[in-house]
Amino acid sequence: MKVGVLTGGGDCPGLNAVIRSVVRKGVSAYGFDFVGVRDGWRGLLQGDVRPLDISSVRGILPRGGTILGSSRTNPFKHEDGLRRVQDTLAKYEVDALVVIGGEDTLGVATELSRQGIHLVGVPKTIDNDVSGTDYTFGFDTAVGIATEAIDRLHTTAESHMRTLVVELMGRHSGWIALHAGIAGGANVILIPERPFDIDQVCAQVKSRFMINYAPIVVVAEGAVPREGQMILKDQSVDEFEHVRLSGVGEWLAREISERTGKDARTTVLGHIQRGGTPSAFDRWLATRFGLHAIDAVKDGDFGVMVALQGTRIVRLPLTDVTAATKMVDPSLYDEFEVFFG
Amino acid sequence: MKVGVLTGGGDCPGLNAVIRSVVRKGVSAYGFDFVGVRDGWRGLLQGDVRPLDISSVRGILPRGGTILGSSRTNPFKHEDGLRRVQDTLAKYEVDALVVIGGEDTLGVATELSRQGIHLVGVPKTIDNDVSGTDYTFGFDTAVGIATEAIDRLHTTAESHMRTLVVELMGRHSGWIALHAGIAGGANVILIPERPFDIDQVCAQVKSRFMINYAPIVVVAEGAVPREGQMILKDQSVDEFEHVRLSGVGEWLAREISERTGKDARTTVLGHIQRGGTPSAFDRWLATRFGLHAIDAVKDGDFGVMVALQGTRIVRLPLTDVTAATKMVDPSLYDEFEVFFG
Amino acid sequence: MKVGVLTGGGDCPGLNAVIRSVVRKGVSAYGFDFVGVRDGWRGLLQGDVRPLDISSVRGILPRGGTILGSSRTNPFKHEDGLRRVQDTLAKYEVDALVVIGGEDTLGVATELSRQGIHLVGVPKTIDNDVSGTDYTFGFDTAVGIATEAIDRLHTTAESHMRTLVVELMGRHSGWIALHAGIAGGANVILIPERPFDIDQVCAQVKSRFMINYAPIVVVAEGAVPREGQMILKDQSVDEFEHVRLSGVGEWLAREISERTGKDARTTVLGHIQRGGTPSAFDRWLATRFGLHAIDAVKDGDFGVMVALQGTRIVRLPLTDVTAATKMVDPSLYDEFEVFFG
Amino acid sequence: MKVGVLTGGGDCPGLNAVIRSVVRKGVSAYGFDFVGVRDGWRGLLQGDVRPLDISSVRGILPRGGTILGSSRTNPFKHEDGLRRVQDTLAKYEVDALVVIGGEDTLGVATELSRQGIHLVGVPKTIDNDVSGTDYTFGFDTAVGIATEAIDRLHTTAESHMRTLVVELMGRHSGWIALHAGIAGGANVILIPERPFDIDQVCAQVKSRFMINYAPIVVVAEGAVPREGQMILKDQSVDEFEHVRLSGVGEWLAREISERTGKDARTTVLGHIQRGGTPSAFDRWLATRFGLHAIDAVKDGDFGVMVALQGTRIVRLPLTDVTAATKMVDPSLYDEFEVFFG
Repeated sequence: MKVGVLTGGGDCPGLNAVIRSVVRKGVSAYGFDFVGVRDGWRGLLQGDVRPLDISSVRGILPRGGTILGSSRTNPFKHEDGLRRVQDTLAKYEVDALVVIGGEDTLGVATELSRQGIHLVGVPKTIDNDVSGTDYTFGFDTAVGIATEAIDRLHTTAESHMRTLVVELMGRHSGWIALHAGIAGGANVILIPERPFDIDQVCAQVKSRFMINYAPIVVVAEGAVPREGQMILKDQSVDEFEHVRLSGVGEWLAREISERTGKDARTTVLGHIQRGGTPSAFDRWLATRFGLHAIDAVKDGDFGVMVALQGTRIVRLPLTDVTAATKMVDPSLYDEFEVFFG
Repeated sequence: MKVGVLTGGGDCPGLNAVIRSVVRKGVSAYGFDFVGVRDGWRGLLQGDVRPLDISSVRGILPRGGTILGSSRTNPFKHEDGLRRVQDTLAKYEVDALVVIGGEDTLGVATELSRQGIHLVGVPKTIDNDVSGTDYTFGFDTAVGIATEAIDRLHTTAESHMRTLVVELMGRHSGWIALHAGIAGGANVILIPERPFDIDQVCAQVKSRFMINYAPIVVVAEGAVPREGQMILKDQSVDEFEHVRLSGVGEWLAREISERTGKDARTTVLGHIQRGGTPSAFDRWLATRFGLHAIDAVKDGDFGVMVALQGTRIVRLPLTDVTAATKMVDPSLYDEFEVFFG
Repeated sequence: MKVGVLTGGGDCPGLNAVIRSVVRKGVSAYGFDFVGVRDGWRGLLQGDVRPLDISSVRGILPRGGTILGSSRTNPFKHEDGLRRVQDTLAKYEVDALVVIGGEDTLGVATELSRQGIHLVGVPKTIDNDVSGTDYTFGFDTAVGIATEAIDRLHTTAESHMRTLVVELMGRHSGWIALHAGIAGGANVILIPERPFDIDQVCAQVKSRFMINYAPIVVVAEGAVPREGQMILKDQSVDEFEHVRLSGVGEWLAREISERTGKDARTTVLGHIQRGGTPSAFDRWLATRFGLHAIDAVKDGDFGVMVALQGTRIVRLPLTDVTAATKMVDPSLYDEFEVFFG
Repeated sequence: MKVGVLTGGGDCPGLNAVIRSVVRKGVSAYGFDFVGVRDGWRGLLQGDVRPLDISSVRGILPRGGTILGSSRTNPFKHEDGLRRVQDTLAKYEVDALVVIGGEDTLGVATELSRQGIHLVGVPKTIDNDVSGTDYTFGFDTAVGIATEAIDRLHTTAESHMRTLVVELMGRHSGWIALHAGIAGGANVILIPERPFDIDQVCAQVKSRFMINYAPIVVVAEGAVPREGQMILKDQSVDEFEHVRLSGVGEWLAREISERTGKDARTTVLGHIQRGGTPSAFDRWLATRFGLHAIDAVKDGDFGVMVALQGTRIVRLPLTDVTAATKMVDPSLYDEFEVFFG
């Protein structure tokens, strides 16, 4: 049996840990051969495929990023994409794929699986928004980095009695913002799942100042103000466009400064949330995902994704999990309302 | 309603986060009054009880340890213990207790609950060995610290081509050793649940050297060699006693040195595993445990412990969870065997 | 003897460590009384002064920020500023001040000292640009945080083969950028002391890609392109203004993307560089500065600043050190040129 | 010109950073060829020498340990040692050596230099006890790790109101203990340079408890009680031997427990102080040492060691610096006495 391994989408701490455990168990326990596909689906489109063995995965467990490279290439957006993927697999005699990726990558995998390609998916995203799994690896690392940043901002906020806005990753879901905001003791947490009311945000900020506390506002990059909110302040479309450009964090700090009369500053945490060595939790999860993914290959159980449910790793049909993004449940968000404002 | 909060047993990162969320929600959402009980059950035995309000819990979320102090006092081992506890509760008009502790503390809570005292338990231990909950808070922090230590030891081991033995906490269960060992890329992981064979350990060590790798051996403090193992080596009782004294880590390093002919050293990580700021994961879990514990008090749902199952917090009867310690499942340990040796 | 302590300017890890050691030694060794001045010079202008004793400084050594608060208030920009400062000192019977601050705060201190106020300065700034001292406290912590961020960005850059631009603090001097850039293995380091040539930056970026490396560009927020550089690209003043607005990091990423044809992204590290617990180095330095500052007060040696020279703490006349900012020496920058490009 | 690089003695964070900068500058600026000598002097004795080029040093800046391996081999303790070293250098046509090591390694280098071998020394040791240089690289990393450990122990000590003893590295000098102890807010710091009085230690411990503080005792592994101290307690020689065996930290905890009647525990930090990624400070220092060492080779300035004085790197004759170990100056230790007890 020859197995191809690929990593797609944004990089994420733990990718190398999955690759390592897939190869270690595949070789040692099952005697499989492996090839590494370069840069996600691009490598299958262009035939960029290289041997992968135990020595290739030596020492990579604690390293961020992916030794295979990654890309956002989607074969179905290329002419003859499917056929070219099939040709590459045939040429290199690849019997099955382990596909490590987030929503987009797994969506492609679902379609390829429907077309008869043998593959097993592994959910990866710092955003934690893949359905069917309690957590994706990479998420815990991102939350840890964001929480440490919030810890640091508290002392600055208090020394100067100003509001600090922290913009975290999360275009479609607020998992990182909610977890890091709660862990970091934020007073306002804004997430895409729940359009916010800028008046209420400012009221919460003011109430913190009244008890001599400097507020920390955590905002996911995809959070938006309630419909109509802009018009109430009589802002032009240009202004609105500018908001998109400079980010919701910058916009919030400006609004809060103006409306509360107290200085507010923004920090956009950016790419440092997705790089560097994975947390122990993510190394554990990624390692287990890899072991179970190669077991599924061994069992010929294709078209599935490995997932974490409680402390167990299970297999779920890809068609089930890629149908919808996993959003923050309103009741979970509401659990924390005593901390807001 | 007046609620007492106490923390018992060894200190653990996240205790303060629980105290904070219990008090924040109890006061803000339910209008409860609170008292803090000093040093676990000792405070109830001796009437050492103090007011606790929102200002007392300000800023404690990221702080390790417990602002209430802790002890290993067991009221049932003191004459008139139960009555003295009841007297203290009556004197301070405490209607219910939130009891934050590990196996021993929750065992006492179970008995007190049987005697009619209104209380809700919160599972706490870096050892992760409380039944009914996927994880206890404190565990993730301990695993993180241990993993970082193992990361550091790899470079030393490789520079000198010697074996490094790391002794981690875990007298009765191997959760920390297993998680940190896997996350840190250890080659041998020894846990109390599975008596080890020193010959096999040495064989694994040698096999690493043969492929030019320096082995890392992770051992829980409660791990023991197989019965008879000592006699085979013809060691006297005195020697055996000395092993207990100096720890299994020291003993292993000596045996490995002698039997492989290559230098081996031990690091005993000790108390740094249980101190300092909690990880983001533990702050999240501890905060949620606190919120749900005070909800149970509000609901008059006593004699229960809050627990994590998947991503949900549930309530379980204390009598169920304190009946048995949660050990590492053999099948979980076996999942990782491709990494050993 | 009654001594006032104040902290001015931006907050900085280590401020609390200075306050603690000043008070600990002042009380224990010399029997001094202390008051804390709130929010830098503002407290002296407005008579906001509070008692400060050993119990107030308990536990603050590892905490970032300043328990005294800070501000950028300059008494000489307020009517009657000098007299109001003198009045406050007289009212509270303050015999001498320990003034902890950066360039601006120490500049005010220099002038107040000329006017006869008894004070001793302690140099503080994450920017490291105070003359006469090898290092200021806060700098090592900022460099450490920035270096860890660069480490994280390497894995992202390599996984996606893109350029990552990191904008670090440093409006007038490039100390943080140079130290963190070298420690983090950056390929391009741009500092205010040396206007950069965008063509050369792009050439360096391209040369990294050619050897299959993803470039990291570190830029101090105050770095600027060479005069004329903009005109060559025929950019309007508006564009130039926009650059100032969105920051040099954003501008660089856009230019590099356009000119090299490869994706480039920016991370602006921002306020997390100045918050949180101080590094061991900064705690050591801040503690020693505090001890020596109170010794100078004891000796009646006023109008001086404590400074680090090698491993010794010395006293320098404030008039000498506040005359000029300490810039990065061109020869130091040139030491590292083999790493650039 | 062909240059050999070797690393000797205990591993130390920053070794790889020196190797990298020596090779990067040697190749890029001067066109030198390089060989790496395996495992310190052992490689020269046994002719274990391999090519070293820019690709070999790629990505090693943040990695602890040494890619060249290390050992404590001393060629002068082997028959014909000098001649065998000379033969290896001749065989591989090595014109000059860059020798990176601590006291022992540099002592050998001094003697080899006297015998006419062209070499430049780079001071390395986490112990910071090399004369002539303000700091050695590796020391800052070790102090940082030790300080973080002390931070963690504070919360445990306070939660249980017990004494925690931390044993740090330092057989002959107390640099790590003094720096980490001060940075970590220890109440007692014991160093080899100053034999301690156990009665005074216990008095300091008790005085902390009286103000409701849990004491932290930091002790360098080489610290010893005052002469006669043992006899006063009527301990047998066997007991004394056991102390050596189990370490001064264990002994202290036992004595403190007995004499104060309060629980005391020990943590021996061990090898984690010397492994893992170097701090930003150490990467900066190691990188500069490497650059200046290869400059000295270029200049034909042999028999010297590079050293840090203030912020400058200087060259000192090896014969001067290896004559004596750099001990902690009594006046530096006394600076901190207000924090003790």
